[in-house]
Amino acid sequence: MAHIELTNDLPGISGLLAQRPDTADPLSRLADALLRTGTPSLSPGERELIAAYVSELNGTRFCSDSHSAFAAAQLDGGADLVKAVLADPGTAPVSELLRALLRVAAEVQHAARPVSDEAVAAARAAGADDTDLHDTVLIAAAFCMYNRYVDGLATKLPEQPECYEESARRIVEHGYGRATAPQGGQSPA
Amino acid sequence: MAHIELTNDLPGISGLLAQRPDTADPLSRLADALLRTGTPSLSPGERELIAAYVSELNGTRFCSDSHSAFAAAQLDGGADLVKAVLADPGTAPVSELLRALLRVAAEVQHAARPVSDEAVAAARAAGADDTDLHDTVLIAAAFCMYNRYVDGLATKLPEQPECYEESARRIVEHGYGRATAPQGGQSPA
Repeated sequence: MAHIELTNDLPGISGLLAQRPDTADPLSRLADALLRTGTPSLSPGERELIAAYVSELNGTRFCSDSHSAFAAAQLDGGADLVKAVLADPGTAPVSELLRALLRVAAEVQHAARPVSDEAVAAARAAGADDTDLHDTVLIAAAFCMYNRYVDGLATKLPEQPECYEESARRIVEHGYGRATAPQGGQSPA
Repeated sequence: MAHIELTNDLPGISGLLAQRPDTADPLSRLADALLRTGTPSLSPGERELIAAYVSELNGTRFCSDSHSAFAAAQLDGGADLVKAVLADPGTAPVSELLRALLRVAAEVQHAARPVSDEAVAAARAAGADDTDLHDTVLIAAAFCMYNRYVDGLATKLPEQPECYEESARRIVEHGYGRATAPQGGQSPA
């Protein structure tokens, strides 16, 4: 049972967002800005993969499972690629750039301190520019927030794991602004 | 030197917000929603105090110093009270409710896992309602993001520590939407 009473039965962050539209608005806008904006080197699928990996490191089941589904829906390698990255980014079949950025993300997840010069240099050697480094650090930092929000308040997991794929379809089509709408289509705002 | 090149010389998060208006917008909206909204039991000054305390636990100097100044500007006890809380919330002269919520915040800072039933029960016994618990968890979680963003990218500290008091005056008057504007008044957006 969650630490606060929810007037809906949505799992994970969805229940919190529906409950509190005032904070849901900037939280959803941030997710859209970080995860739905493609750049030359980081696609939405790769951004979701960083989010899933950080959530896995934090042990937040709901976020790891949902962003894994969102990454799988947008990456050629699908669920198998996501599973390989979560198990070990060092050996997963990803580009050297993405591997280096996942290392940066892991350092950010570990503690609030400067990413090591070695990790930054390795990312730059693999082709990372300032936008890639900025976005990777902020995605990893943001999931240290979302994960703590979801787990800190002891939200529940979905009873039907298929819901992650359904959420993935909505997010790929509509983005995070509408992804938290309860079944039936009403926006929480 | 920061890990990415900034086209401004603003310290801490201010330089990052001015550099990237796309992510600055939701980050500033979130700070406004969490820190500037007073409720019957949690004033803006008390919310800033939770933010300063979490930043201190994370060791993020820029955020701890700036939110300490923002708290001091809005609390009767001023800087002395803030200093006492950062040193030891267990003995600082604050209400039992705020002391219990600071304990909840510390648990959220420590790791992404459910706040203990003991900490939640103590907060409720001191008068916390669902809004207080929700907001405390999300403020603490959000500063685990802001702190990692500021430290992860190795941003610089201000050369003039008085700048925190100047920022406090702007935030108390205008909120976070305009608090990051460079000297001269131009909004980063």
